[in-house]
Amino acid sequence: MNDVVIIGIGPAGISAALYLKRAGLEPIVIGKDFGALNDYPEKIENYYGFGTPILGEDLIKEGINQAKRLDIEIIQDSVISLVQKDQIFTVKTFNYTFNAKTIILATGKKRMTMSIPGFNKFKGKGISMCATCDGYFFRKKKIAIIGCGPYMAHELEFLSQINQDITVFTHGEELLENVDFPVVHSKIVKFIGDNKLSSIETEDQKVYDIQGAFVAIGAPSSIDFAAKLGVIVEKNSLVVDEYYQTNVEGLFAIGDVIGGKLQIAKAVYDGMMVTDHIKKYLDHIK
Amino acid sequence: MNDVVIIGIGPAGISAALYLKRAGLEPIVIGKDFGALNDYPEKIENYYGFGTPILGEDLIKEGINQAKRLDIEIIQDSVISLVQKDQIFTVKTFNYTFNAKTIILATGKKRMTMSIPGFNKFKGKGISMCATCDGYFFRKKKIAIIGCGPYMAHELEFLSQINQDITVFTHGEELLENVDFPVVHSKIVKFIGDNKLSSIETEDQKVYDIQGAFVAIGAPSSIDFAAKLGVIVEKNSLVVDEYYQTNVEGLFAIGDVIGGKLQIAKAVYDGMMVTDHIKKYLDHIK
Repeated sequence: MNDVVIIGIGPAGISAALYLKRAGLEPIVIGKDFGALNDYPEKIENYYGFGTPILGEDLIKEGINQAKRLDIEIIQDSVISLVQKDQIFTVKTFNYTFNAKTIILATGKKRMTMSIPGFNKFKGKGISMCATCDGYFFRKKKIAIIGCGPYMAHELEFLSQINQDITVFTHGEELLENVDFPVVHSKIVKFIGDNKLSSIETEDQKVYDIQGAFVAIGAPSSIDFAAKLGVIVEKNSLVVDEYYQTNVEGLFAIGDVIGGKLQIAKAVYDGMMVTDHIKKYLDHIK
Repeated sequence: MNDVVIIGIGPAGISAALYLKRAGLEPIVIGKDFGALNDYPEKIENYYGFGTPILGEDLIKEGINQAKRLDIEIIQDSVISLVQKDQIFTVKTFNYTFNAKTIILATGKKRMTMSIPGFNKFKGKGISMCATCDGYFFRKKKIAIIGCGPYMAHELEFLSQINQDITVFTHGEELLENVDFPVVHSKIVKFIGDNKLSSIETEDQKVYDIQGAFVAIGAPSSIDFAAKLGVIVEKNSLVVDEYYQTNVEGLFAIGDVIGGKLQIAKAVYDGMMVTDHIKKYLDHIK
């Protein structure tokens, strides 16, 4: 049983790991996606300490090396699920499973999105990022799951318990998992409907009758994890108290995912500050 | 007239400068002392972003270079006085004078101290770090001013208006200023007294009858500046509100000097956060 598993290898997650390690704990940090910094096109000039500007991607690598130097365990793998039972959290990655007394969500705010006509229009009106959250509403409809890998398979497993009328859309990718449902390999080119999603058009000019489309490309965001655990989400941010704890006991969140200034300096600060609260929480549940 | 002058060239001050510059202001940063980080004997491992640990001194230099790259004006000089009149602050360094609408104190928490027997015992009981604060109480006593440079001269100018029985102790240093008072060059070896300071002993085995000793070595700390302006100080920290403003309007403080976690991550965060409040304040007084 781990005291604390941190999900996210950006500034917030690594900063928390550095402080937790110094505080005598053995945090495990899991993450693969470099997050928003990786996509930042310019060098970083406003995070203190760099006489020569640094690329976001390079900063993330520096942070990972910094943690490794302190013998912090870094698992560079995508998290596909986070569940809680009897006060114990279970984190599944593509390759591993970890149990922990506390979790720190620090995956940033990069949101899964698709630049396809109709995506934004029907998001929340037929297009969902969370099978566990929304699957039930589509139990008697024709549904699609979009994705090709373990995250898709994980979401499909859930959906298949409430609905059998499912089509898997790999959106042009190779299918990495065995599935018992029809598979469409052609790329999606359009989401169609009036007020709600009613069909999906693919590159090969076919149109599929679909009322619910669940996007499960790549890995889920921590907002998805958190929402599944019942965490209050407001304006696309996880709501935390002054101790960085969500409304789910033992589940903490820091960095961009809790909103406020989307700045490295703030993420790093959060990582430092959460440490005391994690320690107190662990002492309390002993 | 400058919008904002930052006193302190460490993580807090430079971080504030980076953000203020980006916000369209032209901050001036003044400081010479590298502060607590300069004395930190080990490399820094817990401030995020450094795969290879960095010395405090080198981090400070990186920060200064980072600011210079953004054409931020850095004055590497010691501040010897800060006064306010008609809502305008005047900052004097050894070589320059600046006026500003707002000041950010970010000089850290290094305190002037003397490792001489009796110093700690009589601090506050005859030994003072602030002529303006305490001079009046010694207006009919024999007093000493300890120092040799412009800061000493600045404090002496004030003291000489309330008391003429002053001896200047250079404590082994060469006197850099002309003074109209007796000068003792020999090093101080002991502060003597019962409950209060009553005399000072020097290396040449002389004992001077002194009831008040004002220390003005090097440059004053920002707690000294602030106290002179009437800022509330609690437990050796400047008290600020949620906007980092002290009880003196337009005087802000960030970093170690306001207490809390004495960490780089916190100082850098403060520097980022104070920017919005400075901007709002400047808009408000327009």
